[in-house]
Amino acid sequence: MELLLVIKIGGNIIDDEEKLSLFLLEFSSVPGKKILVHGGGKLATKLADQLGIQQQLIDGRRITDAETLKIVTMVYAGYVNKKIVSRLQAMGTNAIGICGADGNAIRAHKRIHPTIDYGYVGDIDEISNSFLAKLLDANMTVVVAPITHDQKGQLLNTNADTIAQEIAKALSADYNVRLVYSFEKNGVLLNVEDEDSVIKEINPTSYQKLKAEQTIFAGMIPKLDNAFTALGSGVKKVIIGRAEDLKKLIAGEAGTTIINE
Amino acid sequence: MELLLVIKIGGNIIDDEEKLSLFLLEFSSVPGKKILVHGGGKLATKLADQLGIQQQLIDGRRITDAETLKIVTMVYAGYVNKKIVSRLQAMGTNAIGICGADGNAIRAHKRIHPTIDYGYVGDIDEISNSFLAKLLDANMTVVVAPITHDQKGQLLNTNADTIAQEIAKALSADYNVRLVYSFEKNGVLLNVEDEDSVIKEINPTSYQKLKAEQTIFAGMIPKLDNAFTALGSGVKKVIIGRAEDLKKLIAGEAGTTIINE
Repeated sequence: MELLLVIKIGGNIIDDEEKLSLFLLEFSSVPGKKILVHGGGKLATKLADQLGIQQQLIDGRRITDAETLKIVTMVYAGYVNKKIVSRLQAMGTNAIGICGADGNAIRAHKRIHPTIDYGYVGDIDEISNSFLAKLLDANMTVVVAPITHDQKGQLLNTNADTIAQEIAKALSADYNVRLVYSFEKNGVLLNVEDEDSVIKEINPTSYQKLKAEQTIFAGMIPKLDNAFTALGSGVKKVIIGRAEDLKKLIAGEAGTTIINE
Repeated sequence: MELLLVIKIGGNIIDDEEKLSLFLLEFSSVPGKKILVHGGGKLATKLADQLGIQQQLIDGRRITDAETLKIVTMVYAGYVNKKIVSRLQAMGTNAIGICGADGNAIRAHKRIHPTIDYGYVGDIDEISNSFLAKLLDANMTVVVAPITHDQKGQLLNTNADTIAQEIAKALSADYNVRLVYSFEKNGVLLNVEDEDSVIKEINPTSYQKLKAEQTIFAGMIPKLDNAFTALGSGVKKVIIGRAEDLKKLIAGEAGTTIINE
């Protein structure tokens, strides 16, 4: 099966023009089939503040009310998505930007929760493999904004990490998928204060050990659990590391590679 | 050649939830290949006002500065485009929303003018027939936001009427194109005060006569000149009328049909 890279870039890259440019140059120069999933960065929060729209938090969870949905749709699917696409076009990469409503790419439902109404937040039901494959087969690089839809006309705000994971899992039926989570650190660190303490490889056995020894920073555990879920669903490799090191991450020369053994 | 409808909807439809819903239901029920080009409506101006961004006008022309470009990209390519796409998906129409940067669909350059710097306003150089045909051949309805790019990483604000016209002209090489301009009137009116005075058909001869007699409302002349330009470039029919009458417009039962004879 053909190699497919599914790469998620975080808000810290989106917010930093220089980091974004460096990343896009690296990304653009990697050959083959690629899907880029982006978060939103701080611009949505900034815009909401400027417009006097208060961010609602319930139990520390952000609520997406109608006005916030409008803002994230504008910022993620509009400003950020089209900025990335136009930059990639300038680098000779034929990119197309989509959200989950386009081509019915990502179907979701409004989150159901016994006590918290998250508002217009979507949990993913299904990825359209055929639609994404059509774009990839036309030699297009797909840039995905973290907005999905419910097929009833409602757009929904959806976590970009989860979108990347679900796309990677779904497309594992057709491709040899490598999932790259880029963030602001060099990889999974043994010592969160030391960027040189990257754990090069984690497999299920070493993960249990690291967890038992409480060596891993607690904040990494949900990310790693997600990584193993993806591996359990056919994804071949999950790599976690710094976006600007993309080529090294893919080559296994930087970051943390998570494998199922 | 297969029939292709290129339909432009104006801001008055975008701004009115009820009109938009009625139009999209009509649009969705029309079979065959379709491209929908939308303007932005008043939301961009409203958002700029809320953010305290002053609209610059030079000689009555709106200037697109960097902040305004950001806003129109968010509103047109984000909010409006994705709202239309999600609504169409709910109606069973497999839509995909794009701007001119996506798939390198619409290449443009920053407007060159001897005395006025229009800012980030794009004049169109080329439409990618192959990209649009790929989407249409995959049975997708294409929804186009009026933002183009210069292939150097710069997004550009571009008139939606012009985008519709240029797409219609370019795709006339591959399709039997009908171009529909929808606006807030029943069609081209003999008496601008009387919605029942629609001129059913205009050809080059009758157009010259109408202009000589000064029967036509001056504001319609640029639209009609554009229509004849499109007809001169291979477009088979141009229809002008009310968006909510879409089916009747296509059937020739409403609006004004402009033909080259």
